[in-house]
Amino acid sequence: MMIAEIIAIGDEILIGQTLDTNSNWLASELTILGFSVQKISAISDTKNDIIKALENSESANLRIITGGLGPTSDDITKLVLSEYFNFTLEHNPQVFEDVCAVINSLNSTMNILNKEQALFPKGAKLLRNKQGTAPGMWFENQGRITISLPGVPFEMKYIFKNEAIPEIKKFFELAFNYYQSIMIAGYGESGLALKLKNWQKQLSENISIAYLPSPGIIKLRLGIKGSDLLKNKEKIRTEVNKLLDIIPEYIFSLEESLLEIEVGMLLKNKKKTLSTAESCTGGMIAHLLTSIPGSSEYYKGSTVAYSNEIKEKVLLVSKEDIEKHGAVSHEVVEKMAAGAKKIFNTDYSIATSGIAGPDGGTENKPIGTVWIAISGPKRTISKLFNFGNRRDINIQRSSMAALNLLRLEILND
Amino acid sequence: MMIAEIIAIGDEILIGQTLDTNSNWLASELTILGFSVQKISAISDTKNDIIKALENSESANLRIITGGLGPTSDDITKLVLSEYFNFTLEHNPQVFEDVCAVINSLNSTMNILNKEQALFPKGAKLLRNKQGTAPGMWFENQGRITISLPGVPFEMKYIFKNEAIPEIKKFFELAFNYYQSIMIAGYGESGLALKLKNWQKQLSENISIAYLPSPGIIKLRLGIKGSDLLKNKEKIRTEVNKLLDIIPEYIFSLEESLLEIEVGMLLKNKKKTLSTAESCTGGMIAHLLTSIPGSSEYYKGSTVAYSNEIKEKVLLVSKEDIEKHGAVSHEVVEKMAAGAKKIFNTDYSIATSGIAGPDGGTENKPIGTVWIAISGPKRTISKLFNFGNRRDINIQRSSMAALNLLRLEILND
Repeated sequence: MMIAEIIAIGDEILIGQTLDTNSNWLASELTILGFSVQKISAISDTKNDIIKALENSESANLRIITGGLGPTSDDITKLVLSEYFNFTLEHNPQVFEDVCAVINSLNSTMNILNKEQALFPKGAKLLRNKQGTAPGMWFENQGRITISLPGVPFEMKYIFKNEAIPEIKKFFELAFNYYQSIMIAGYGESGLALKLKNWQKQLSENISIAYLPSPGIIKLRLGIKGSDLLKNKEKIRTEVNKLLDIIPEYIFSLEESLLEIEVGMLLKNKKKTLSTAESCTGGMIAHLLTSIPGSSEYYKGSTVAYSNEIKEKVLLVSKEDIEKHGAVSHEVVEKMAAGAKKIFNTDYSIATSGIAGPDGGTENKPIGTVWIAISGPKRTISKLFNFGNRRDINIQRSSMAALNLLRLEILND
Repeated sequence: MMIAEIIAIGDEILIGQTLDTNSNWLASELTILGFSVQKISAISDTKNDIIKALENSESANLRIITGGLGPTSDDITKLVLSEYFNFTLEHNPQVFEDVCAVINSLNSTMNILNKEQALFPKGAKLLRNKQGTAPGMWFENQGRITISLPGVPFEMKYIFKNEAIPEIKKFFELAFNYYQSIMIAGYGESGLALKLKNWQKQLSENISIAYLPSPGIIKLRLGIKGSDLLKNKEKIRTEVNKLLDIIPEYIFSLEESLLEIEVGMLLKNKKKTLSTAESCTGGMIAHLLTSIPGSSEYYKGSTVAYSNEIKEKVLLVSKEDIEKHGAVSHEVVEKMAAGAKKIFNTDYSIATSGIAGPDGGTENKPIGTVWIAISGPKRTISKLFNFGNRRDINIQRSSMAALNLLRLEILND
């Protein structure tokens, strides 16, 4: 098994100013590549601490170091690494060209600090940076590799994906790991684990599964180790097909995706339009839908109706219905959906009405009670949920449940 | 200077499944307490790796270890730490009582694993956990302290704040650090740094400042080291007053807060109501406002108008205005604000109309162009912005700018 270590350099991490998302991203990438990540550390940008971290990680086959490559004087990684590996720094024309290109694209002018960025350790391999001015570096030493990348996340990711991964695959003989993500909506983690218990039991030993939950959504990641990629892909496909039999209506994508993307694609492909009428979700569904580029093609708008008056005045719900059944009822939520569909002149509409908390619950309708309605070209349906008394979680789970109900209705039509 | 180290235990961090937010939170807390955090690491939950991490961090005055205290068998931190410090595990009645209380509050029943959680190293100090079943532990060894906390974030934070901090303050003589956060909206990071350049130059040497930016908001954190708390607080207050002179309209809170909270409190105190008409922000402002408990008292609702038809039909904008000036214009955004105020019958309204990208820009109105209008009891204003071509950032910055404009209008009225 190839061992990897990740070292993040930067005082801003140690004082809690910056959350180190780079290491998390790299850990996931390295795991998928087939490495076992043994340690992640964050250290300060002093020579002493960098040397100590290098000495403590010498048994790793691959070390990835992020940060400390900027143009300001407190960024000393390049100097320390060159000294540590006994390489001299010299002007590198390719790096200089790359730095100039980036500076030009920003309509900026070179300064003395940028010129220093073109210094590069002679003998190290250049990992070109086309997104910023700090080059990536690849050091080989006694059969072990140390890669140094800038700390700016999008530069780091660009260099790792485009420059480092090809070299890593060339250098290391990795037991290729194959992963597939299955996106599931409408199930809690423990409920899903229970439902999949028997399936999980029959899985062959070299298949790993991970439940990666976020409110209302579970990403199920299947992994398989081994060098026979074609056979392994086939094995995973067989298991995915079994899952499609066990929980057909809950799987919304067989690769990483978002429910708002999938719903959007369905609407776009079927040339249908959507509107929303939100009470308890307060605009969250509209926000999710409109966060997807091009959503104006199928999403027409929303009425966020936080008062009964607006439910009556804008969404055309009758005062009688609200008085008789209460705003949190299937009668009212269905009328809200009908109102939105009419006003926005759409094929489909979503409506939500519930008690997101922390106040407002009653004995019959405790905090967390949520009614969701979907109105489509053929019928209107509504469903009752309870999503608990944490306001933020409740809003997120309600939004995901609503998008999933809509997805199922579109598929049925 | 007292040195601290943070060690997170858990394979889920090393495979990139979980982002280690605990260490980030602890780093910030420890810095504020007066420690210098020298290293943060994440290691796997094997005895070997835990021992190695303990040996490598022996020079630290304080070590905080998170994770590996759950009831399942792969959580071995308690065993390894007890062995390392030569303490024997024994049944602890107080821990047992606490575990029972938590189990009861969850309407759950004790199982064999929970009983094991009542085992506690004899001689260690108990840091009681009232949020979960894994107790916190305080080990003293040769004048140095090691604290072990569960990995579940809300349990970890609860124990650290309520149980660990008082003991830490008793044990260590800390050069007390005093911090104050100032919340600023309406400025970019580099623009603000430029504006505050002269003020920053005259700061006394023992005052530190950090810019902590998120889209549309900057948290400026002033810190001062030293034991004379009263004098230091006074020094910070003097500097904050200078800031209030330099950028009065941009500071929305003198402690950690959110713009949607501050706007909500202003509306509530003045007994005023609000509605929104959102085009380019697509429901984000409504979502932010309704994420605050009790917002239904002042926030009445929103029309998310993603098409010109809805701007006309629901928001009562005239077809002529849209045809003559375009949907992204001060004429239309002001009419949208007026429409929302009328429909929702509120004192104030916010309207947004812009080109969030990545498509839809023209030469005169490039991607990123955003018009924001505020209509109040006395007047309607509108302002033109450009928030760049990244859709998600654009939506966030537009929302923050809109809330800040509203805040200033309420304060002026």
